[in-house]
Amino acid sequence: MDNQKTLQNLMEAFAGESQANRKYSAYSKKAEAEGKKNAAKLFKAASDAEILHAQKHFEVAGKIMSTVENLNDAIKGENHEYQSMYPEFLKVAQEEGNQAAVRTFTYALKAEEVHARLYKEALENIEQEEEVFYYLCPVCGNIEKVVPEKCPICGVPGTKFIKY
Amino acid sequence: MDNQKTLQNLMEAFAGESQANRKYSAYSKKAEAEGKKNAAKLFKAASDAEILHAQKHFEVAGKIMSTVENLNDAIKGENHEYQSMYPEFLKVAQEEGNQAAVRTFTYALKAEEVHARLYKEALENIEQEEEVFYYLCPVCGNIEKVVPEKCPICGVPGTKFIKY
Ligand SMILES: [Fe+2]
Ligand SMILES: [Fe+2]
Ligand SMILES: [Fe+2]
Ligand SMILES: [Fe+2]
Ligand SMILES: [Fe+2]
Ligand SMILES: [Fe+2]
Repeated sequence: MDNQKTLQNLMEAFAGESQANRKYSAYSKKAEAEGKKNAAKLFKAASDAEILHAQKHFEVAGKIMSTVENLNDAIKGENHEYQSMYPEFLKVAQEEGNQAAVRTFTYALKAEEVHARLYKEALENIEQEEEVFYYLCPVCGNIEKVVPEKCPICGVPGTKFIKY
Repeated sequence: MDNQKTLQNLMEAFAGESQANRKYSAYSKKAEAEGKKNAAKLFKAASDAEILHAQKHFEVAGKIMSTVENLNDAIKGENHEYQSMYPEFLKVAQEEGNQAAVRTFTYALKAEEVHARLYKEALENIEQEEEVFYYLCPVCGNIEKVVPEKCPICGVPGTKFIKY
C-alpha cells in the first residue's frame, strides 16, 4: 500500500485535468464569439491536450475496469447525483433565489435519474446482441430510447435529439 | 452575498460533471474494445450529456468572462500545475516507485509549462489579426507552433501532430 498517495494524486490530477478540459472548451467558444480566432484555436488545442492527460492519469490509477464493473460504478455515481447531491444543491438554490441555478440543477437531477435507469438496463442486458439506439436531448442531457415528440424534461422538440 | 453557497455548489457540480464526462468517455472506449456495443453507445451519449451539464453550470456560475480575463485565468491554472502540483506529485510517485505515474506526471508537467507560455503569448498578441497555427502532440499534450521532427517532450514523430 506504499502506492496509496500516488493513487490519490492521480485522481486529484484527473479531477483538475477534466475541469481544465471543460473550462478551455467554454473559453474557446467565448473567444470564437469575440472574434479572437487565435485564442479560440489555442484554447481548443489545450482543451484536447487536457483530455490526453485526464485519460492517461485515469488509466494509470487503474480505474478502467470491465464494462460490468464500469456500469456499476456509473450507476453509483448517478444515484449519488440524483438522490443526494442535486436535491441538496436545488434546495439551497431555491432558498438563495438563484433561478438560473434552480433550472440547471433541475435539468441535471432529472437527467441523472434517467442515466441511472438506462445504465441499470444496460447492465441487465449486457449479453444482448441486438443493437439499441439512444437519443440525447441537446439541452438538458436527457436520453431516450425512442424519440419523443418533446423532451419530457425540458420541452425541446424531438427533432433536435441526437442519435447514438 | 446570499448567493455564495449556490455559486460554490455550481462549481462542485461542474467538477463532478467534468469528471463524469471524462470517465464515461474512457468507459465507452473500454466497452467498444470488449465488443459491448450498446454499453459503448450509452456511455458515449451520457458522456456528451455531462458536457451539457458542466457547460451550463459553469456559465451560470459566471465563470465565462472576456477572453483576456479567460487567458489570465488559464495562465494561473497552468502555472499552478507545472510549478506546484505536478512537481509535488512527481516527487511522491518517484518515492513510491510508481513508474507509470512518474511518466504521466512528467508529460503533463512539461506540457503545462508549454501551455502557460503559449497562453501568455496569445495574451500579448490578442489584437493580432494574422492567423496562428498550433500543433498538438497526441501523446503528451505538448503544443508547438511549428511541427517538430520529433516531440521534444515524448519523442512522437511530428507527422502525428494534429493541426489547429
Ligand atoms: Fe493537463
Ligand atoms: Fe449522468
Ligand atoms: Fe431535454
Ligand atoms: Fe450530469
Ligand atoms: Fe494545460
Ligand atoms: Fe509529445
